[in-house]
Amino acid sequence: MKTRIGILGYGNLGRGIESAIRQSEDLELVAVFTRRDPKTVKIHTEQVPVVALSEALDWKDKIDVMVLCGGSATDLPTQTPEYARHFTVINSFDTHAKIPAHFEEVDRAAKESGHLAIISLGWDPGLFSLNRMMSTAILPQGKNYTFWGKGVSQGHSDAVRRIAGVLDARQYTIPVDSAMTRIRGGEQPAFTAREMHKREVFVVAVEGADRAVIEAEIKNMPNYFADYDTEVHFITADEMREKHAELPHGGFVIRSGVTGFDGGHRELIEYSVKLDSNPEFTGAVLAAYARAAHRLAAEGQQGCKTIFDIAPAYLSPLSAEDLRAQLL
Amino acid sequence: MKTRIGILGYGNLGRGIESAIRQSEDLELVAVFTRRDPKTVKIHTEQVPVVALSEALDWKDKIDVMVLCGGSATDLPTQTPEYARHFTVINSFDTHAKIPAHFEEVDRAAKESGHLAIISLGWDPGLFSLNRMMSTAILPQGKNYTFWGKGVSQGHSDAVRRIAGVLDARQYTIPVDSAMTRIRGGEQPAFTAREMHKREVFVVAVEGADRAVIEAEIKNMPNYFADYDTEVHFITADEMREKHAELPHGGFVIRSGVTGFDGGHRELIEYSVKLDSNPEFTGAVLAAYARAAHRLAAEGQQGCKTIFDIAPAYLSPLSAEDLRAQLL
Repeated sequence: MKTRIGILGYGNLGRGIESAIRQSEDLELVAVFTRRDPKTVKIHTEQVPVVALSEALDWKDKIDVMVLCGGSATDLPTQTPEYARHFTVINSFDTHAKIPAHFEEVDRAAKESGHLAIISLGWDPGLFSLNRMMSTAILPQGKNYTFWGKGVSQGHSDAVRRIAGVLDARQYTIPVDSAMTRIRGGEQPAFTAREMHKREVFVVAVEGADRAVIEAEIKNMPNYFADYDTEVHFITADEMREKHAELPHGGFVIRSGVTGFDGGHRELIEYSVKLDSNPEFTGAVLAAYARAAHRLAAEGQQGCKTIFDIAPAYLSPLSAEDLRAQLL
Repeated sequence: MKTRIGILGYGNLGRGIESAIRQSEDLELVAVFTRRDPKTVKIHTEQVPVVALSEALDWKDKIDVMVLCGGSATDLPTQTPEYARHFTVINSFDTHAKIPAHFEEVDRAAKESGHLAIISLGWDPGLFSLNRMMSTAILPQGKNYTFWGKGVSQGHSDAVRRIAGVLDARQYTIPVDSAMTRIRGGEQPAFTAREMHKREVFVVAVEGADRAVIEAEIKNMPNYFADYDTEVHFITADEMREKHAELPHGGFVIRSGVTGFDGGHRELIEYSVKLDSNPEFTGAVLAAYARAAHRLAAEGQQGCKTIFDIAPAYLSPLSAEDLRAQLL
């Protein structure tokens, strides 16, 4: 069966899902929903309509899974329970601390209306969470380490852009190699934030702005930069456009544990992604889970789920027989 | 609820599961079953009985999950359907080509008797299969690469031991670094066996044996060595005991894929394990899936499953709430 997908919100992630849908014959983009004037939104897929969000409910019977692509700060907390009342929905809600509350709200809305929702999909939260969870279950005596980067952090880039005198900014999060080397060698250190990641910022400043003031303001910014070693580089708008237009990212989840009657054997599990395009990869994860959501909903599953609750076979277009023969 | 586990077959893997059970308070070893004279089998866990295999059925009501620890060549193909008629069973059946047929036999036995079975658990097949499958579903345009090592291959060690003049042997499978480097750089090469792995063999020879003949016989052995670059070292029995007593292993699953409307972005997913003890780690995986099997059986699930069919949350002793709060 084909999975008919609606995309709600057409930014980087929406485009990432659109491109992922094209790679799978059993996934079909049906419509893109936007708060903007639909006439002003041009998408990549010909003959697929862009529809005003206010008309979304007219599409209830034409869409199997609605992928919510808004931001975690304000869009997803309200949109997800709202649309879970009418559609099978999935999202990439990524404010880790607020996941339990978000889950409860979405679960209530989905159960009351008999729908299925899957929240917090992507790579972190998402695939990284899955690996932290499985590795912890397999090696209960051990420690988890998560490194992010090298890659663009949109939150940190935005924080720098809010500084007076800054026209544009791009922040790269970079894992500290020596920390990873120690863990891979079997140590289980307790690291500070500074020991695990460093930050590199590229800034286009207003002409005549005091660069020393901007640099100090970045480096001392609480939460975002103060606890890290940060390098700041001032560049031209041209250089920003040429060298920093992409959104690469990546990261590592490492579990270091011990086994044996005396705990004498060290065992390491490592999972990593290295991404040219963070939004396209996140879109690829969401596309696979859209397939899973459709199947689970067709089986009558209701309420809110997370990546922990989904049997992996639901992600693949292959039959159970083919999976066993080809990939087990 | 506690999961009461029986271990059937007490070799390296059986001991690995026994030690893994000790790391989880909700897992309990109830009995070890053996074909040997039980009086001759000494296990690590005091007050747990060693029982003759012929009495296993007397334990039907005292065991939640029977972990079958025999070999894939002759033990598991017959034991798994046999015991699936009386117990929830799990195994680590690892003859990839025979998995579909094994699945069918176990599935029939389990369904006819209303039991649950999970086959082919461990790290390959097992966690590596899971990663191949999920990464393929997420990045449908791409290529999978699996590297094993550095680690001891028991099958290759056994093959060398069968050569005339060989007293003992240990074979290490070693991934070729340059091959991994190319894949991590985004290439998708078609490798020969020789380009991905090399082999290193340590041999204790009978005194006076012709070493050149033994070395040639190893290097030209079809399937096992002929397609690889192999180094052979002759060592003393003392050196074998001192330096090659452990069973380390490891490996890498890498998916190299592309995303985007023009396929222009490269995305890499890599999963690896680095193990001081292959049987203890495999035992740790089986222990976590024993927990899952118990829960699924308690829910009324029947028939044969694989790692693809098990929602990850079943592996963890934590509640769904705690998993979301702590690990998502």
